[in-house]
Amino acid sequence: MRISLIGAGNLATHLGLALNEKNHQIIQVFSKSEEHASDLGSRLNCPFCNDLSEIVPDADLYIIAVKDFAIKSVLESVDFGDHLVVHTSGSVPSSVFSNHCKNYGVLYPLQTFSKEKAVDFNGIPILIEANNAENIAILKNLASEISEKVIPLKSGQRLSVHLSAVFACNFVNHFYYIAEQLLRDQQLDFKLLKPIILETALKAVNNSPRLVQTGPAVRNEKLVMEEHLKMLSLYPEWERIYELISENIYNTHKTQNDIF
Amino acid sequence: MRISLIGAGNLATHLGLALNEKNHQIIQVFSKSEEHASDLGSRLNCPFCNDLSEIVPDADLYIIAVKDFAIKSVLESVDFGDHLVVHTSGSVPSSVFSNHCKNYGVLYPLQTFSKEKAVDFNGIPILIEANNAENIAILKNLASEISEKVIPLKSGQRLSVHLSAVFACNFVNHFYYIAEQLLRDQQLDFKLLKPIILETALKAVNNSPRLVQTGPAVRNEKLVMEEHLKMLSLYPEWERIYELISENIYNTHKTQNDIF
Repeated sequence: MRISLIGAGNLATHLGLALNEKNHQIIQVFSKSEEHASDLGSRLNCPFCNDLSEIVPDADLYIIAVKDFAIKSVLESVDFGDHLVVHTSGSVPSSVFSNHCKNYGVLYPLQTFSKEKAVDFNGIPILIEANNAENIAILKNLASEISEKVIPLKSGQRLSVHLSAVFACNFVNHFYYIAEQLLRDQQLDFKLLKPIILETALKAVNNSPRLVQTGPAVRNEKLVMEEHLKMLSLYPEWERIYELISENIYNTHKTQNDIF
Repeated sequence: MRISLIGAGNLATHLGLALNEKNHQIIQVFSKSEEHASDLGSRLNCPFCNDLSEIVPDADLYIIAVKDFAIKSVLESVDFGDHLVVHTSGSVPSSVFSNHCKNYGVLYPLQTFSKEKAVDFNGIPILIEANNAENIAILKNLASEISEKVIPLKSGQRLSVHLSAVFACNFVNHFYYIAEQLLRDQQLDFKLLKPIILETALKAVNNSPRLVQTGPAVRNEKLVMEEHLKMLSLYPEWERIYELISENIYNTHKTQNDIF
């Protein structure tokens, strides 16, 4: 397919490179930042622009991979005619396209991307949605070229997946940060936690996290938790977080016959 | 060394097996549960007992690897004479030995252990402490046989490490569980998150988590967060957790010139 890539961030970069490798033709890259547009244009060996008025009118597919809040303004600024337009966001429902596009969809790779790190799309779930069966088929074919795991989902379900990823990725990373800071306060290196962090992640994804919960909260070890709260007195927000999570862990596991 | 192993849980099992492999002699295993004692005794090819009065008086080293709250009662029940006694807990200070033992210490492997899963101790940090330099040296030699990363730490620092592991392991696993439940509610499989969970963990341990924070909270995307909170209305405790963590993420990252 001849693809116009609107965006030059982490996701746009990796998606563009992956599609390029499968012999799709990225015919242009847009970014508000001329530097980013130019960088990605040279990596993809294609023209770039930093003005939406220069978006070509005849691509087979337009991929909008910009920040969530900017999707709407792209749709308001460009006339895509009958061409297929997709965004790549987990949290923006497909209704954003209403009144703007006739053929539209979503192509959401469920992963966290860093600019400099190479990505193997193959294992990454790609959640797709489109306004009709024909467009679903087009996106399914395209996504299946770069990933084994292409899943059609409605917007509501995709939003739930995105919310679950906020807990399992964004919030988890914040707890890594809290751990890092607590260790720094003792002049200790965060790398100390590398084995336990990786083992915790592996154990959860190879089991049900419900079944492998450990720690003072699930065992209701009050003295240990009191000691921890005292140690957190310098960080009142973390104290409240500690209490709330511990309480929720205890409540989750206290009965034998719960939801699982 | 001739070692008496007091405890037969996950940590006792893996530690016993690792020391056995290095040609130390586990001369007995104790567990309150005769079944657990017998199981581990046969894996280590040594006698077992389920009565503290049968603890032998002449081991070179006693390793107390029981639940935190039970350490004190072991110390009150057994006369260890001048022999070296250690516990394996992250959260129990070495002062627990006062008035009970003349030679004592701590040997805390910083990892989460599952009974059935083989453990390579080599990469696991082992935090050690002892009542004097001679005993530190003994524990350092012993621990260095099974791990490359042996670190002498005082009780206060070890408690901070333990607290940081509660965030980076126990609390993180609870967030995996929340994600699992949110996906179940949509008849979706938790395995969907496997790539993003592993990538998030890898990214954090290979960088500073402070520098790789992503998601709606750090970008202060209020509309997305409001949408998420609506989706959590079935789970009031998770709603509060979502608000509190998002606020803390935002507060952590809002200034450029913060603590880092």
